[in-house]
Amino acid sequence: MQNNEALKALLEDIQSGKVSVDQGVESLRDLPFQDIGHTVIDNHRMLRNGFPEVIYGEGKTKEQLVDIFGYMRERNNVLATRVDAEKAAFVLERFPDAEYNAMGRTLTFLKNEIEFKPGEIGIITAGTSDMDVAEEAKVTCEMLGSHASIISDIGVAGIHRLLGRLDNIRKYTVLIVIAGMEGALSSVVGGLVEQPIIAVPTSVGYGANFSGLSALLGMLTSCASGVTVVNIDNGFGAACAACKINNLVQR
Amino acid sequence: MQNNEALKALLEDIQSGKVSVDQGVESLRDLPFQDIGHTVIDNHRMLRNGFPEVIYGEGKTKEQLVDIFGYMRERNNVLATRVDAEKAAFVLERFPDAEYNAMGRTLTFLKNEIEFKPGEIGIITAGTSDMDVAEEAKVTCEMLGSHASIISDIGVAGIHRLLGRLDNIRKYTVLIVIAGMEGALSSVVGGLVEQPIIAVPTSVGYGANFSGLSALLGMLTSCASGVTVVNIDNGFGAACAACKINNLVQR
Amino acid sequence: MQNNEALKALLEDIQSGKVSVDQGVESLRDLPFQDIGHTVIDNHRMLRNGFPEVIYGEGKTKEQLVDIFGYMRERNNVLATRVDAEKAAFVLERFPDAEYNAMGRTLTFLKNEIEFKPGEIGIITAGTSDMDVAEEAKVTCEMLGSHASIISDIGVAGIHRLLGRLDNIRKYTVLIVIAGMEGALSSVVGGLVEQPIIAVPTSVGYGANFSGLSALLGMLTSCASGVTVVNIDNGFGAACAACKINNLVQR
Amino acid sequence: MQNNEALKALLEDIQSGKVSVDQGVESLRDLPFQDIGHTVIDNHRMLRNGFPEVIYGEGKTKEQLVDIFGYMRERNNVLATRVDAEKAAFVLERFPDAEYNAMGRTLTFLKNEIEFKPGEIGIITAGTSDMDVAEEAKVTCEMLGSHASIISDIGVAGIHRLLGRLDNIRKYTVLIVIAGMEGALSSVVGGLVEQPIIAVPTSVGYGANFSGLSALLGMLTSCASGVTVVNIDNGFGAACAACKINNLVQR
Amino acid sequence: MQNNEALKALLEDIQSGKVSVDQGVESLRDLPFQDIGHTVIDNHRMLRNGFPEVIYGEGKTKEQLVDIFGYMRERNNVLATRVDAEKAAFVLERFPDAEYNAMGRTLTFLKNEIEFKPGEIGIITAGTSDMDVAEEAKVTCEMLGSHASIISDIGVAGIHRLLGRLDNIRKYTVLIVIAGMEGALSSVVGGLVEQPIIAVPTSVGYGANFSGLSALLGMLTSCASGVTVVNIDNGFGAACAACKINNLVQR
Amino acid sequence: MQNNEALKALLEDIQSGKVSVDQGVESLRDLPFQDIGHTVIDNHRMLRNGFPEVIYGEGKTKEQLVDIFGYMRERNNVLATRVDAEKAAFVLERFPDAEYNAMGRTLTFLKNEIEFKPGEIGIITAGTSDMDVAEEAKVTCEMLGSHASIISDIGVAGIHRLLGRLDNIRKYTVLIVIAGMEGALSSVVGGLVEQPIIAVPTSVGYGANFSGLSALLGMLTSCASGVTVVNIDNGFGAACAACKINNLVQR
Amino acid sequence: MQNNEALKALLEDIQSGKVSVDQGVESLRDLPFQDIGHTVIDNHRMLRNGFPEVIYGEGKTKEQLVDIFGYMRERNNVLATRVDAEKAAFVLERFPDAEYNAMGRTLTFLKNEIEFKPGEIGIITAGTSDMDVAEEAKVTCEMLGSHASIISDIGVAGIHRLLGRLDNIRKYTVLIVIAGMEGALSSVVGGLVEQPIIAVPTSVGYGANFSGLSALLGMLTSCASGVTVVNIDNGFGAACAACKINNLVQR
Amino acid sequence: MQNNEALKALLEDIQSGKVSVDQGVESLRDLPFQDIGHTVIDNHRMLRNGFPEVIYGEGKTKEQLVDIFGYMRERNNVLATRVDAEKAAFVLERFPDAEYNAMGRTLTFLKNEIEFKPGEIGIITAGTSDMDVAEEAKVTCEMLGSHASIISDIGVAGIHRLLGRLDNIRKYTVLIVIAGMEGALSSVVGGLVEQPIIAVPTSVGYGANFSGLSALLGMLTSCASGVTVVNIDNGFGAACAACKINNLVQR
Repeated sequence: MQNNEALKALLEDIQSGKVSVDQGVESLRDLPFQDIGHTVIDNHRMLRNGFPEVIYGEGKTKEQLVDIFGYMRERNNVLATRVDAEKAAFVLERFPDAEYNAMGRTLTFLKNEIEFKPGEIGIITAGTSDMDVAEEAKVTCEMLGSHASIISDIGVAGIHRLLGRLDNIRKYTVLIVIAGMEGALSSVVGGLVEQPIIAVPTSVGYGANFSGLSALLGMLTSCASGVTVVNIDNGFGAACAACKINNLVQR
Repeated sequence: MQNNEALKALLEDIQSGKVSVDQGVESLRDLPFQDIGHTVIDNHRMLRNGFPEVIYGEGKTKEQLVDIFGYMRERNNVLATRVDAEKAAFVLERFPDAEYNAMGRTLTFLKNEIEFKPGEIGIITAGTSDMDVAEEAKVTCEMLGSHASIISDIGVAGIHRLLGRLDNIRKYTVLIVIAGMEGALSSVVGGLVEQPIIAVPTSVGYGANFSGLSALLGMLTSCASGVTVVNIDNGFGAACAACKINNLVQR
Repeated sequence: MQNNEALKALLEDIQSGKVSVDQGVESLRDLPFQDIGHTVIDNHRMLRNGFPEVIYGEGKTKEQLVDIFGYMRERNNVLATRVDAEKAAFVLERFPDAEYNAMGRTLTFLKNEIEFKPGEIGIITAGTSDMDVAEEAKVTCEMLGSHASIISDIGVAGIHRLLGRLDNIRKYTVLIVIAGMEGALSSVVGGLVEQPIIAVPTSVGYGANFSGLSALLGMLTSCASGVTVVNIDNGFGAACAACKINNLVQR
Repeated sequence: MQNNEALKALLEDIQSGKVSVDQGVESLRDLPFQDIGHTVIDNHRMLRNGFPEVIYGEGKTKEQLVDIFGYMRERNNVLATRVDAEKAAFVLERFPDAEYNAMGRTLTFLKNEIEFKPGEIGIITAGTSDMDVAEEAKVTCEMLGSHASIISDIGVAGIHRLLGRLDNIRKYTVLIVIAGMEGALSSVVGGLVEQPIIAVPTSVGYGANFSGLSALLGMLTSCASGVTVVNIDNGFGAACAACKINNLVQR
Repeated sequence: MQNNEALKALLEDIQSGKVSVDQGVESLRDLPFQDIGHTVIDNHRMLRNGFPEVIYGEGKTKEQLVDIFGYMRERNNVLATRVDAEKAAFVLERFPDAEYNAMGRTLTFLKNEIEFKPGEIGIITAGTSDMDVAEEAKVTCEMLGSHASIISDIGVAGIHRLLGRLDNIRKYTVLIVIAGMEGALSSVVGGLVEQPIIAVPTSVGYGANFSGLSALLGMLTSCASGVTVVNIDNGFGAACAACKINNLVQR
Repeated sequence: MQNNEALKALLEDIQSGKVSVDQGVESLRDLPFQDIGHTVIDNHRMLRNGFPEVIYGEGKTKEQLVDIFGYMRERNNVLATRVDAEKAAFVLERFPDAEYNAMGRTLTFLKNEIEFKPGEIGIITAGTSDMDVAEEAKVTCEMLGSHASIISDIGVAGIHRLLGRLDNIRKYTVLIVIAGMEGALSSVVGGLVEQPIIAVPTSVGYGANFSGLSALLGMLTSCASGVTVVNIDNGFGAACAACKINNLVQR
Repeated sequence: MQNNEALKALLEDIQSGKVSVDQGVESLRDLPFQDIGHTVIDNHRMLRNGFPEVIYGEGKTKEQLVDIFGYMRERNNVLATRVDAEKAAFVLERFPDAEYNAMGRTLTFLKNEIEFKPGEIGIITAGTSDMDVAEEAKVTCEMLGSHASIISDIGVAGIHRLLGRLDNIRKYTVLIVIAGMEGALSSVVGGLVEQPIIAVPTSVGYGANFSGLSALLGMLTSCASGVTVVNIDNGFGAACAACKINNLVQR
Repeated sequence: MQNNEALKALLEDIQSGKVSVDQGVESLRDLPFQDIGHTVIDNHRMLRNGFPEVIYGEGKTKEQLVDIFGYMRERNNVLATRVDAEKAAFVLERFPDAEYNAMGRTLTFLKNEIEFKPGEIGIITAGTSDMDVAEEAKVTCEMLGSHASIISDIGVAGIHRLLGRLDNIRKYTVLIVIAGMEGALSSVVGGLVEQPIIAVPTSVGYGANFSGLSALLGMLTSCASGVTVVNIDNGFGAACAACKINNLVQR
């Protein structure tokens, strides 16, 4: 990869004297990792190559959000997740060209146009209560350069709704299946299609749902082989994984 | 009910002097509960009216099983559950007219012919590994006087197998749905039929299944309303509940 | 069933040319499932045949509730569960002919008179704190067409209260037993009566109750065979199951 | 108490010169605690005043048991708990005057006759499977100087069995209530009698019993006030507590 | 007991014609349980014989509290637990002769003077944060007729504080030991004194405390034999148990 | 898709009279699902198109394994997972041309040569104890038509081992990361590479590992976005998912 | 140690008559423990020898805080932890010379200058959200007499950030590693350095993080030997442990 | 540090032409980490500088153990942990100069004499059942170059035993406190001494101990500040941490 190229170039510069040994020591410390990303914004790894910078909004004050958002939008597209309405209003006042998705709680800014990859990611939800997670996933997919569509409210308690849309569902490159309660939707979809499936358990439910535990365990023990799982309510993470997979299509 | 009748009769006997006051005191102590059942064999409530006596075999020695089985078969039909092969062989040596169901681990003896109720109980399993629980349920249903059939291996990972048998499934009065792993089958069936459904989570699975916890939580949080749940692997309990329901049909 | 009848009719129409092949393709997609229900309102399966449509109010805004409620009341009876007082007031302002049950947090509207089935469902609570779950169950039963009565505050710590009402309790077709804390009431009732029993653990309690876990586990491991269990605080689900059972009586 | 007396005497001896300052330092280090107990055998605190020494047999080899048992029997009555049949046989071969209770897994030796306190401890079990815990409790009570009787198999699924024995149950000074599964027996007994009740959850059950967790949580959240709880299967601990209470009677 | 006496008297009245058979049926229904208590106020069993009636305040509205409190104070002493400051103020406005203990969140009314039993209950706390539970326990003890004192803030991290008060601690008939975090205090006290000990785990702590779970498990597995445990934060229950034990002293 | 084509053809045949209405009813029942798969062997969905049939060996007797294996090998390549050494020997005796991977506990038979897809799956393990899961994954990948290599023993406690192989690791299309204990490897790898990563928690560890729970939770909450997770020890499931992703490459 | 010295001195005073026997009894009760601390403020053991007194602010009213803070500042340096902004403002109004660290939620007062030990404690955080715990640790370290620095935001998802600062990290005597989510940072650091490491799991995260459980279990099962762990979010405890270790350096 | 020195030297060699650019690329890949350790044996990081190599015996076959042990003993001192008696016998047969500690399940070989550091580690156990963990810790300490002694059986149920040995306990540089059941010993010791304390919860206990969970949670929530914790039964890890701390003494 280009790492070795860069390393070779640096060493040749040292050999030729263009770069002093002391400068070389300095440069070499970080070089092998330079292409991985140069900074991390609050637990979301910087995503390279035209990808947006990502801000995790939970636990940040609105002032902090304005600072970080303002700094980033100078440099690149920006995606902030888990931004509640009040914080969003505060940021939008300052940066009216940002866009807020109230259901998905995302705040985005486009400095450069997104170059979309071929393929499309299908986002399926069991119920309308899972829509916030679905919207977070959809916005993330698009900011990361993959088209995405939501097919909502086709939970297993009315299996015909799912079956009636199978032809549509089979068109997508990758599927994100979002369900709370018992999370059975990922098993049923997993038995009907051939695509990679990323299951997102949600905290929708009460009692023995234990804040998403029932859906999480259900998806992990799914009888449909080949379903993989992310954290409860983690639409962002599912979208990241789906985009990494969708990126394989065009290579 | 007849309780009050019996009580009235007793009091009239006391009034008329047929029964002394002291005898009356003695009789009255237990009378209000006499019709509830007069003994309990190991946590399984005595089941009245031609129903078999039930022995819970787990944790009993083979000698104890022979004693209890022998005592009971003189009086009534007998059902022993959770009897492993070695214990069963020991009992059968002594009582060759008993019958052992190796998969369901039940040992039964028929003193009187069973008078079957109208209606039939359908027992559905997700996989072949759930068959031991299904057999325990089937034998229990029959000993309690309800016909029962098993429809096996129609888990949700291949939904067509379930859909192809829907007309058959809709014929039963009550359904027992048995599934391990994520237990999604009860949600899907619950969305397709109108009958009462009793879901049995099984300990089939590993890892995040946590000995049946994933199926248990999944069934309790099912998005299909009206599904009720019994303990993990409890085919006996599901059958008891199903028979209580099926008994309503002919009244 | 009538599914096959409808299918046959459609195919005959195609054969005779009344319906074109393309229309046939369209119609056939959903037909096999058409009688199951054509839409789902927020995780509550549509209940057919004069049954009300059901709205799960938790997590919906008051505006959404007004929209859905308004749409549904044009077509059928309506039952909305988990509607808090503030949302209820908002809906009632718009639809003054709806009825709010403050304790059960249900909002109902009757477009057509309910045709009640024979039989009656008995709803038993351990303590007065379980009354909200009991009310949710009672309203649901009635909207689904079964009579229901509540017998409250007869928990096992004063067993005489239960015993004194046994004759009354034995009159019901099905019993819903609601209890928090250790949930022992379902075991005791299960040992005294012959009817099907649906146990509802409630989150009443604190500490080792762990939000209803103690009652849930207690009911699942009940020594009284034939007790089935629904999710914590799920009065609606218990009522759905009880009505499915009660519906068997008149057939 | 005598602690202060002893301390005063020691200080007077130092003042008078009988005891040197250095000796005083040495003596004072441990004096305040000297009367608390002088040794501990394997997590079971030595019980003073004619009480037996107690050995916890689990995790000890049979050779270790022989050593400890042999050492102790020279000095006092001995109680060893959790001794399985094989280890017991090994010890009995060496000390044929010891006594083994196979069900309670206790091994005892009487060097001095037990002086029984007034009062009697009642040990109630829900099912016959709880008998091993009950026997451990009974033997422990007797070795600690309290009479004890077992009333077995009166679980709540057949409440009449319990009610029929209420007059008998009310005779005891303290009650130990032993139950597995949902552990409801302690709530029901707690609502019927005035005595102190110590509840012992047992690991009898399967599935959602989670090795005794359901009974443990059920007993801790009991709606009958004044029930206290010990560890799962801890017949020994319940007996210790019951004896401490029973000892209050004669003071 | 007097049950049989009452029963005998009733039957003699029937025999002599004083009571008709029908009246007899009515009377007999509840008689065997009449002396147990005639009503239950919110999960707290009525405590007889001059004991107060008990109201569990959690989950009740202030209006409900006024109703129940007002009804009860006509008949007997009253103890209401878990009453927060706002509700207490509302009740006190109406019944200025009630007394509120803000730390213990108890509201009491004395209609009759309490006749105290001999003996005294010692209530020991690990930290000042456990004082609310201690106060609840103290007020309950006194309302139930036992003297009680609190010895606070002697947790095991400074063992000398405990040791310095041992002579005092050993004076009490029964000990209630209240501790959060790891709950080690009950083990240490249990190793130092001979009295019955009731341990109360509290929810004081954070993180791995899991709302009191660490203290609860620690107390249940205490290496000091004979310690019994009640629910997390359950000062009321500990006091009930302690009073039942203390009542044995004077018999 | 072809579903609609087939449906159209069938309807045209009905219209033209080639197919009778009754035959049409029969054909239409299953048609929409015919291409999904025609049978399921024990919870492993049949994998179509030259893929092997899969047997889940756990819980099957050796006789059952011989039966199923024998039946399948007539038709296709066969993969059996979770087959212990004793069962494998029994099957191999009968079918000596099968191949047993002792570490991965897989039993395979090749009827047709595997047509490998382009791309290769990298399987990374944290420690040598994770090798059994890695081998199960590798054999599964190959049987499903994807090349796979194992890079073992590069856990995070010696991060240089991982960094030294980064260039190699970056060559694979998809990565399966297998780790027990705290499962940190997936986070570190996830921060260093761009490929899709499927994390497999293993049950390697003890104590607070709780049979794989620590690794499972760690992987689910990974700070490296885009890591997806399968069940504990589920090498088979990870391979299925990886192959579905790898299949996208050549399309 | 000086305990014996003090004891010896007291006894010599008694011998010489300077101290009476009765005074001696009084003094001796507490003396053996006098140097451990003479009072405890809310579960934080008094820290001796110029160390500050520590107040645990959680659960205290602002009035209580003012009282305790005021009392302590007369005698010594003071450290109050877990003080929220509102309470801090209230205390600062009264004692303007106190200092509030808003992020670490600590309130401190310096009566005497801190005498710093040699050595320095390094505090490493995975993300910026862990900064509050880091600040609590830093302030505690300094108040206890050890220098401390924070190196923030070097979580494992961008391993180069950590590697680039290794030389710096290796300079510290002891390391405190603070991380939420999966807590992998302590494993990676533990594999790279030789110093003692104290890991602090934080509650940063959501879903399967279960309020810090994932990080806690991950750190406890770390594959890097020699990492020890404190409670979730317990920056104070980690600092106490680190200072005890750092104190060893200069001895 | 020397890392930079080595790096500088290498770059100077490249500048001078002694090392070619290609060789430089190769050398530079691993150099920054070369001094961290060169291999890892089964999750136990290699411990440098005369420290032994460590083998984790659990899950290894006896043949594997012989291979690894044989390879290592050629190069260095060897420590193998978790080696059961049967495996140990097999290894000893081959390498009779190895030494087996049956209680601690360690197998050691000394190629070079251990150079002991100043200071000594005190290992305290609550009960005799904790001795296996204590022995594992002791052997590990010694192989890592720190003297260590065990003070056993001084659990908190007999606090005087602990207090009587306080002067002895205070002599050690670091303390390892090992306890099962409720794990209270670490809190009590933590309140009495100034040294760093590493607490090891053990799985000794039953029922609510949940395989060591009660001791683990108790130690993590200890009211004695500055106690740090390792995994359940992890004597090896505690010893590694203690040695890292003890190593600070002589620097």
